[in-house]
Amino acid sequence: MPESARTRTTYHVRMEQRITLVTLGVSDLGRAKRFYEALGWSGQEVEETVFFQAGGIGIVLWHRDKLARDCGLEPSPPVPFGGIALAHNVRSDAEVDDLLRAVERAGGTITKPAARNAIGFYSSAFLDPDGHAWEIACNPSFTLAEDGSVTLPDFGGSGVRGARG
Amino acid sequence: MPESARTRTTYHVRMEQRITLVTLGVSDLGRAKRFYEALGWSGQEVEETVFFQAGGIGIVLWHRDKLARDCGLEPSPPVPFGGIALAHNVRSDAEVDDLLRAVERAGGTITKPAARNAIGFYSSAFLDPDGHAWEIACNPSFTLAEDGSVTLPDFGGSGVRGARG
Repeated sequence: MPESARTRTTYHVRMEQRITLVTLGVSDLGRAKRFYEALGWSGQEVEETVFFQAGGIGIVLWHRDKLARDCGLEPSPPVPFGGIALAHNVRSDAEVDDLLRAVERAGGTITKPAARNAIGFYSSAFLDPDGHAWEIACNPSFTLAEDGSVTLPDFGGSGVRGARG
Repeated sequence: MPESARTRTTYHVRMEQRITLVTLGVSDLGRAKRFYEALGWSGQEVEETVFFQAGGIGIVLWHRDKLARDCGLEPSPPVPFGGIALAHNVRSDAEVDDLLRAVERAGGTITKPAARNAIGFYSSAFLDPDGHAWEIACNPSFTLAEDGSVTLPDFGGSGVRGARG
């Protein structure tokens, strides 16, 4: 086989560096929908799901056990920490405080009160009614565009502190 | 107090409908980094984290127990299903197949082989080395832009089928 043909058959797929949907498994769809609506979100209920357009991705609410089976997995009950945290960065420390108050009014559980962390930025965390962890933070080193999209800084490989948030 | 003043003090915060970062808790940072790099991703390692720019959001790898504590939560061991699934939609059924082969080569675990589901679109699922669930799907009703961002269809409140994917 000529070299060119061999090269063609060595086809390496590259997974694009992105997420299309984040689906949150919930035990009570109505309760979960009301929680995010109370925070000001507006979605579309379609059969047993709720779809929220979230910038260039979708956030979906769906029954936890059905989502597990759809992934070919055995359902399992929630644990204190599910292994993933979603962060929502805002533009000022005051917005962090305001948003946490809104979360409490909506029925979320604050698990980390807002405070300046060791790295120097202001952050907090809460759980939604199904125990999904969200961090709310203002980290000025992460540039937020007008539309809410984030551009990560060039950390320069120098071990710059202040990365997470 | 005049009505106008009272209205001004009733300030309702609205959470923007978006995510800034998705942080995946991992038990072995090097292994997790190698997995996503084997799929073609390129990130920045900063102290004990790896940051990937993923469209308008960031995907972060961080030690699972440290992430839990940073959220004010007790660490807990992984379960068969962590409660969240990340979906990565592609543009053709063939891309689903190609990507699954790449996932297997990289050491991921296919939990749902690619198949046309009851709704009619082609989907599959895998776990990364830390058990985070990803769905790989081609659902033509979800419009993917050139940059990979997705625009959800207008489901029209009519119970249109074919929502998830």
